[in-house]
Amino acid sequence: MSDLIPVPEARIRPVILSGGAGTRLWPLSTTDRPKQFLPLVGPTSLLAQTFERTRDPVLFSPPLVICGERHLDQVRATAADAGTDEVRLIAEPAARNTAAAVALAVLSARHDEELLLILPSDHHIADPAGFRATVDAARAGAAAGLIVTFGMRPTRVETGFGYVESGPAIAGLVRRAVRFVEKPDAATARAMIESGDYLWNGGIFLATVATFRAGFEAHSPDILAAVGAALAARAGDQMVPDRAAFEQVRAVAFDHAVMEKFDRIGVIPSDFGWSDVGSWLAAFEHAARDAEGNSVEAGSTVLSGTGNLLRSTGPRLIALGVEGLMLLATDEVVLVAPLSEAQRVREAAAWFAANPAS
Amino acid sequence: MSDLIPVPEARIRPVILSGGAGTRLWPLSTTDRPKQFLPLVGPTSLLAQTFERTRDPVLFSPPLVICGERHLDQVRATAADAGTDEVRLIAEPAARNTAAAVALAVLSARHDEELLLILPSDHHIADPAGFRATVDAARAGAAAGLIVTFGMRPTRVETGFGYVESGPAIAGLVRRAVRFVEKPDAATARAMIESGDYLWNGGIFLATVATFRAGFEAHSPDILAAVGAALAARAGDQMVPDRAAFEQVRAVAFDHAVMEKFDRIGVIPSDFGWSDVGSWLAAFEHAARDAEGNSVEAGSTVLSGTGNLLRSTGPRLIALGVEGLMLLATDEVVLVAPLSEAQRVREAAAWFAANPAS
Repeated sequence: MSDLIPVPEARIRPVILSGGAGTRLWPLSTTDRPKQFLPLVGPTSLLAQTFERTRDPVLFSPPLVICGERHLDQVRATAADAGTDEVRLIAEPAARNTAAAVALAVLSARHDEELLLILPSDHHIADPAGFRATVDAARAGAAAGLIVTFGMRPTRVETGFGYVESGPAIAGLVRRAVRFVEKPDAATARAMIESGDYLWNGGIFLATVATFRAGFEAHSPDILAAVGAALAARAGDQMVPDRAAFEQVRAVAFDHAVMEKFDRIGVIPSDFGWSDVGSWLAAFEHAARDAEGNSVEAGSTVLSGTGNLLRSTGPRLIALGVEGLMLLATDEVVLVAPLSEAQRVREAAAWFAANPAS
Repeated sequence: MSDLIPVPEARIRPVILSGGAGTRLWPLSTTDRPKQFLPLVGPTSLLAQTFERTRDPVLFSPPLVICGERHLDQVRATAADAGTDEVRLIAEPAARNTAAAVALAVLSARHDEELLLILPSDHHIADPAGFRATVDAARAGAAAGLIVTFGMRPTRVETGFGYVESGPAIAGLVRRAVRFVEKPDAATARAMIESGDYLWNGGIFLATVATFRAGFEAHSPDILAAVGAALAARAGDQMVPDRAAFEQVRAVAFDHAVMEKFDRIGVIPSDFGWSDVGSWLAAFEHAARDAEGNSVEAGSTVLSGTGNLLRSTGPRLIALGVEGLMLLATDEVVLVAPLSEAQRVREAAAWFAANPAS
């Protein structure tokens, strides 16, 4: 048998990062049930949609999901509901940001030439076929030894995102990434957009294991070493790195740890309807709406009024005679506000946390 | 012992009618928990406030409550919470409107000269001391053999109420009631109000047992007879008339059965801040409001915005950046609408009943 030459896996391994627990989609998004588990845009959750868009047996091998330990059951249930039968799981015993998660994927990979597609679990992509075509086109950059980031064409002056400047073409559609600019002010953002050279950094990365490893070794070797130690120290449960060791890992975004410093970064201009669903307004803009412009789930209704967003994980919702509102409910709390005030959700979450029920 | 002359009870017996189950205060008001059990105006329920305003040991004897059988526990708990230790209860095995309830009180009374004050359990009275003073003044009419109704000075053109025309003074402040007009059109209502002679019929009645009985015997003897039969047929449980017999009682309002026809009706002009709390707008108008004009219960908040009403029996509520809305919640359903659309609550209730959760 030893004379058989192993066939390199040509397919791409999706590495789905499900460790986030943001508060911008409060009150539905909570620590126990973060945003990726919610049906924010369409009838299935963002994580389910992530499974669905990476289920292509020619392009993708079965996904690896890196999630918080407390969310293992929700990830398994979502994969089953989405029809993704084969899924590998690594559960993080503590949240250490995305660099640690990418390092876990690198150190768990089968061989150096395996292609890993790092992708968030809580984004929306309107055009999954376009997404897959772009991933396929990005292979050329990965084959050339680059970490390829997916650069979204800006559609508005956005100060909350990272931007990447695209340079000359290197390999097919993949261009050199010249520099990154994180969360610019509005004037800078406007100038970058008008230049035509800047794209939004979508947090999706394609590279071989060897290239990812080279990036860590060049700019954040401590993270690779600490994650390796946590994996080596783990007990019988193969899915969970050792907690004490993992808590020693520096918590930093992969963008900061590697992308902004590494000299082998490519960017592929992308146009597949990406959104980070970073607010209820974004969820509303990407959700299906009825003839009156309302986005309502089954079981709830807008009896009159236009442009409202209704979402609940608890009671059913009825809106009557209102315009442009978001009405959000759980079994514990209901929030009503104009969609135009969606950024102020944090205030409501802070009030709720500071004022427990009597 | 037979030579002792019984001392007539000079005090008035409050007869609190707690049989209603309206839908105008949906979704908080339900068949299981009607309006009178809700803290719609202030921190205690309307029934609790009714107990409180009739707790005056000089003016009132302990109350008799006539309620639906399913609400016995809620009535007992409310009385206990309100500090009303002594309360008599009659539980109706079926809802037969107010004439049947008044007949139950008449047939359960101790003697013919006992004064009964019939009063709804689900109204709000802003000035309880004024209420008691008016009741005391109405005694003169009851002593003169009248059923005295309490006539509220109209404060708006209201087509949903009954009006009573007041005539010449008969006994102290009590005037002759000339005629009743039920739910007039707007032009008629306006003309009546401008005449100065018409008052709102508040559904509060004071008379002796003998006078109430005479009214029934003159105009609705069937109701008195049927209620008497249901009381005679009851089993060991003294509080509940026989169900089959009680279901034979004609279901009609006491106003229709007796008041509109009887020739011994008085009316006392009243000004004690009465409201039937017939809509969420009425609840809002009578409720305490904060400096921003919001009416909010403990546990909920308006982070910004004015003139909102927030009420919940389930999740806590947060409003942010909205004006003039009502936000109403139970564990099952949330309704948001402008307060100006409060009359459309029935549409929402109908939709909810017709569209069960999937």
